[in-house]
Amino acid sequence: MKPHNTLEHFTAPRSIAIIGASEDPTRIGGRPLRYLIEASYPGAIFPINPKHQFVQGLRAYSSVSEVPTKIDCALIILPALSVVDAVVQCAAVGVKAIIIFSAGFAETGPEGAQMQDEIMAIARHANMRVLGPNCLGLFCKSSQAYLTFSGVFDDVVGTNGDLGLVSQSGGFAGEIVKLSIQRGLQFGTWLTTGNEADVELGEALIHLAQDPNLRVICIYMEGARKRESFLAGLALARRNGKRVVALKAGRSEVGAAAVQSHTAGMAGSDRLYNTLFDQYNAYRSSSIEEMLDVVYAARQPVRMQGKRLAILSTSGGNGALAADYAADLGFSLEPLAENLQQRIRALSPHAATANPIDLTAKAASDPSIIAKALEALISSGSYDGFYVFVGLIAGIPALIEPLLNALSPIPGRYPGVPIALSITAPDAVVRRYEAAGFLLIQDPRRAITALHSLTVFDNCPVGLDPVAAMHRPSQKTGDLIAGRRYNEVESKALLQQIGIPLLKERIADNPKSAEQIATALGGRVALKIVSPDILHKTDVGGVRLHVSCSDVLTSISEMMQAVKHAKPEAQIDGVLISPMLDDALEFIVGVHVDAVFGPVIMVGAGGIAVEITDDVACQLAPVDTQNALAMVRSLKCGRLLDGFRNRPRADINALVNTIVTLSEFAYANAQLLGSIEINPLAVLPEGEGVVALDALIETAPALQALTDGSK
Amino acid sequence: MKPHNTLEHFTAPRSIAIIGASEDPTRIGGRPLRYLIEASYPGAIFPINPKHQFVQGLRAYSSVSEVPTKIDCALIILPALSVVDAVVQCAAVGVKAIIIFSAGFAETGPEGAQMQDEIMAIARHANMRVLGPNCLGLFCKSSQAYLTFSGVFDDVVGTNGDLGLVSQSGGFAGEIVKLSIQRGLQFGTWLTTGNEADVELGEALIHLAQDPNLRVICIYMEGARKRESFLAGLALARRNGKRVVALKAGRSEVGAAAVQSHTAGMAGSDRLYNTLFDQYNAYRSSSIEEMLDVVYAARQPVRMQGKRLAILSTSGGNGALAADYAADLGFSLEPLAENLQQRIRALSPHAATANPIDLTAKAASDPSIIAKALEALISSGSYDGFYVFVGLIAGIPALIEPLLNALSPIPGRYPGVPIALSITAPDAVVRRYEAAGFLLIQDPRRAITALHSLTVFDNCPVGLDPVAAMHRPSQKTGDLIAGRRYNEVESKALLQQIGIPLLKERIADNPKSAEQIATALGGRVALKIVSPDILHKTDVGGVRLHVSCSDVLTSISEMMQAVKHAKPEAQIDGVLISPMLDDALEFIVGVHVDAVFGPVIMVGAGGIAVEITDDVACQLAPVDTQNALAMVRSLKCGRLLDGFRNRPRADINALVNTIVTLSEFAYANAQLLGSIEINPLAVLPEGEGVVALDALIETAPALQALTDGSK
Repeated sequence: MKPHNTLEHFTAPRSIAIIGASEDPTRIGGRPLRYLIEASYPGAIFPINPKHQFVQGLRAYSSVSEVPTKIDCALIILPALSVVDAVVQCAAVGVKAIIIFSAGFAETGPEGAQMQDEIMAIARHANMRVLGPNCLGLFCKSSQAYLTFSGVFDDVVGTNGDLGLVSQSGGFAGEIVKLSIQRGLQFGTWLTTGNEADVELGEALIHLAQDPNLRVICIYMEGARKRESFLAGLALARRNGKRVVALKAGRSEVGAAAVQSHTAGMAGSDRLYNTLFDQYNAYRSSSIEEMLDVVYAARQPVRMQGKRLAILSTSGGNGALAADYAADLGFSLEPLAENLQQRIRALSPHAATANPIDLTAKAASDPSIIAKALEALISSGSYDGFYVFVGLIAGIPALIEPLLNALSPIPGRYPGVPIALSITAPDAVVRRYEAAGFLLIQDPRRAITALHSLTVFDNCPVGLDPVAAMHRPSQKTGDLIAGRRYNEVESKALLQQIGIPLLKERIADNPKSAEQIATALGGRVALKIVSPDILHKTDVGGVRLHVSCSDVLTSISEMMQAVKHAKPEAQIDGVLISPMLDDALEFIVGVHVDAVFGPVIMVGAGGIAVEITDDVACQLAPVDTQNALAMVRSLKCGRLLDGFRNRPRADINALVNTIVTLSEFAYANAQLLGSIEINPLAVLPEGEGVVALDALIETAPALQALTDGSK
Repeated sequence: MKPHNTLEHFTAPRSIAIIGASEDPTRIGGRPLRYLIEASYPGAIFPINPKHQFVQGLRAYSSVSEVPTKIDCALIILPALSVVDAVVQCAAVGVKAIIIFSAGFAETGPEGAQMQDEIMAIARHANMRVLGPNCLGLFCKSSQAYLTFSGVFDDVVGTNGDLGLVSQSGGFAGEIVKLSIQRGLQFGTWLTTGNEADVELGEALIHLAQDPNLRVICIYMEGARKRESFLAGLALARRNGKRVVALKAGRSEVGAAAVQSHTAGMAGSDRLYNTLFDQYNAYRSSSIEEMLDVVYAARQPVRMQGKRLAILSTSGGNGALAADYAADLGFSLEPLAENLQQRIRALSPHAATANPIDLTAKAASDPSIIAKALEALISSGSYDGFYVFVGLIAGIPALIEPLLNALSPIPGRYPGVPIALSITAPDAVVRRYEAAGFLLIQDPRRAITALHSLTVFDNCPVGLDPVAAMHRPSQKTGDLIAGRRYNEVESKALLQQIGIPLLKERIADNPKSAEQIATALGGRVALKIVSPDILHKTDVGGVRLHVSCSDVLTSISEMMQAVKHAKPEAQIDGVLISPMLDDALEFIVGVHVDAVFGPVIMVGAGGIAVEITDDVACQLAPVDTQNALAMVRSLKCGRLLDGFRNRPRADINALVNTIVTLSEFAYANAQLLGSIEINPLAVLPEGEGVVALDALIETAPALQALTDGSK
């Protein structure tokens, strides 16, 4: 997908009209004007206010039609009911872009949605782009475009940093700008998308991904509206070397969605975002505070090449806590090599020298040993990243300078190596360590989390675009009939048609063929009587399990006798012969067609377990064998496949192939499909394949909903 | 257990000797002296230093034997090898308590451990209490006892707060004192226990639990050493109305312990601590930062009576994030009653009025609506706690005073009601909201977590001491033979003896008795040939499953024929008849005898699931039916028991009774027992009981290790 930059009339307008400009600089209508004036915005500003000749000292106009020059961008700050008229006027004079702050549209119900549709009809016809409605506008320092009423700029001077933000919440955008300044971080630009009647998250992301001033892009989102732009934005950001930190709200809606079918609930949007962020090396943070910690680390020129972490501490307790956090996040804490341990003990005789390393109180008497130990660790080449807990020792007046002098040269000698440092010391001391190249985060858990984020950004060196590189199925596999209701039998038949094995049961109508069938199946079999007159087969002795080939004839004759005895008048059509599946592991494999992202393939612990364990992996369909294997390997129950606890190794290949096949089928039939659920899929011992024991296919309930691509 | 306060010679000594006192106030030997002098410690101070007549201006003595008066407490700050001599001298002059800062003892290996043992032998003989070695001492403001070399007091004036700490890490204690001051919190006393040769965590906790100056007690721990004192400390703190916040390191060791048997690994100490903290209404925090957030909330006179939370926000995004955190922590976010929603809409027409409530940008134009909405929520009586996100609006210069004026009166009108408030505003503004009675935590996730901690402290109104109220088994149940190795059959026999049902299999030696046995069992049965000559029964047709009563005779005769055909020479001893367990759910029930806490009963998802799902609950044995039921209900797989997905309801009572019975047996045989594991325990449909399908009992490997109660 070719990104195109159409948002420049928003972010770098040459002229701005403010419809509803207010004389009062503390009011919503007065703030943008005040901010633009204070920032010496270089373009033309046209306050629109029919009641005043001048607004905040600028010549005002009664409407946009009176403005003497072309207007690039118009801000609309009016009650909802007056917005349509203003949009009509903007369209009439050829405004390129409008930003609608006003609330009272689609977010409030059908009436508001209708007004919003009306606005969009006018805007599209006039080729006019729209940001909002119900948004907080945008801010772009490089063009001095303060097109927002966010109160954050009441006492914050516009920041010129290398951080960008796109946010579906206006309040969040103001908040993070303010909080980031407290942390010494600066956002150079942000956009809020509000109701996303036109410009949505993905397009804004694509825009920021091309901004040469940015190193890190933050996203606050509740849900993407367009698959293409969202994924293109993530891909472009990565290609352009910009690290992405996302915060997505609405996790708890997954709980609400649990009443839906498994597949819909499990592959449902929130879980899918985890997969997508991972695939594009974007970090998903869980709070605004974590987002800022991660942004702080992400904007540094350091890389975490792997997950080998060394923890160096001046306190055993704090080292132990850090080790817990590191273990939580999947870091490997490999013990130090013996010669390295000896070097540490030479520095501090009672030191704990495995990993974490505890230098003990000796570090407080001779802080130089902290630096010597750290340098020994880094120069060993055995670790990808370093966490150093110094704590209050770094702030003890007599120790501040000696410790700074010892530690400061180290990051410069190892450029690109991430060293997170926790100290409890005055701000000025913290700043000096930062200037030396350390990542300073006081709380151990937060510091380890920030190091973890670096592994997310950096651990995919290939830089592939998952969508661009997406496995394309070589051939169309199976045909779904639009709108048809498939029952279990029909669903299974269709799955068998695309190559997913069913239980190989066959009906024998005489003893000889029964023996042949059983021999062909191999192993032990189950025998079941087939009769339209017998509902509960076991009750009449019509079931024989675990029958060996040599026993088939005997068992059938016994069974026939028993059935005849119990139901003398029953019509017997034959004997159903199927293999026994004693060593099978149960998985669920399914597809859910997401309204935004299309078909999503999922695999998880099957049978009843799926309800309980929540052990599920999902990806956009189609997937290739490598991706499918990665999905299986990410499951907790994936361990069972390797022959857990004296069980035989299971046929992982067959499971993987089933995932691939189903994903290709779903992709080929995306327009017609609702969902597929194979549960359980029995995975047999290695070489014996898989068997779909139960399955259901649902076609799309309303085809037209999928064709226009919008929610 | 009767608590007794023997630590006063440490925390309120009338005279102090400092053995190894240094002239240099920045050195370890110089710091305590400097702190005592600066704090005007009212008792006598005796620096012990053979090389100086005066140390830091005080008359010095060459040894404790030269000190003219009795010494309550002696600090020993010497190299490890000189400590024993100093202890001997202290013992000789009747010192009551010694604090050993020196490292190089049990924490370093067998040689150090031997020196430590030597010290303890001397101390016990002289009735002298010991804190440490390898500790950071203690601090008690009320007695001005600065008996520590923690650098924290180099620039921190001793704090006189209502917070206490007992810590197994010295570094942690210094750190939290410093960090708490940044947060406006003050620790009035703390003790560090180091190697715990004598005074250990539990006794220190008991001591603090009786300190009338304290409202909140923090614990940093890596593991308790004595069950009795630890639990008595937790119980006493609760009885005395002191909230306890614990931080326990070493979670990741659970991973390392996974190589042990299930039961040991699962019921292993870290998981048990979660149960114990819960039972005593103590909050377990996961980081020092979270600990301080919780301490901040815990010291306020507010109670969270239930888990009904209302979220009021000025920004939809921040409200949505808060809702996610609340859902994570099990809060119920009940929607507002319709009349309440109408009141909110009257304040802000576009407000989202369910829960979370979003007042929209209208709150920035008219901040009084925040106060009106909050008061409407509180006065409804429908919620137990309140989270209010105001954010940067509270810091906008023009809005600071109006908002403060509107909100400040509210907490006073609803005393005891917790209202957490997130604002981004100058410190002075934050302080004013705090003074009004709000809990101010800027980050939404941290604020919601602090509210959650209040539910932990407060949600057990009965104030029972779980140990004091512990269910006492009415009779001794079953006898374990010391040191015996029980195989599976013997283990099962013993379990049957105490009333845990086994598979009711019986051997029939003729067809008539077979029919009787099957009829007595009821339902369908499995038939298995019994022969010393047949190893793989199914291979010779020696197994018939799902056989109905009426079919038993036929099936046996068929089976006999098949077996005779396959193994003509085999000696046939009879037919084993056992019930089929088609609708059984598999659980694991087990006991692990913890070195510190004694027998721990556990229940979890059984079969293979136990390895994968980590779905386990544990408690100290014995438990009564109520506790056992609570354990089962806390499991994710507990849902299966209620008849999940068209399965029959399972026999929960039988599962509960098995837990109770096993826990009583373990308690009665605690001295002899190593572990018990019943896995799987089949739980049958309601009314049909449970069956132990596999079980193993291990006796204690070394009986003497359990008798002295120390690790």
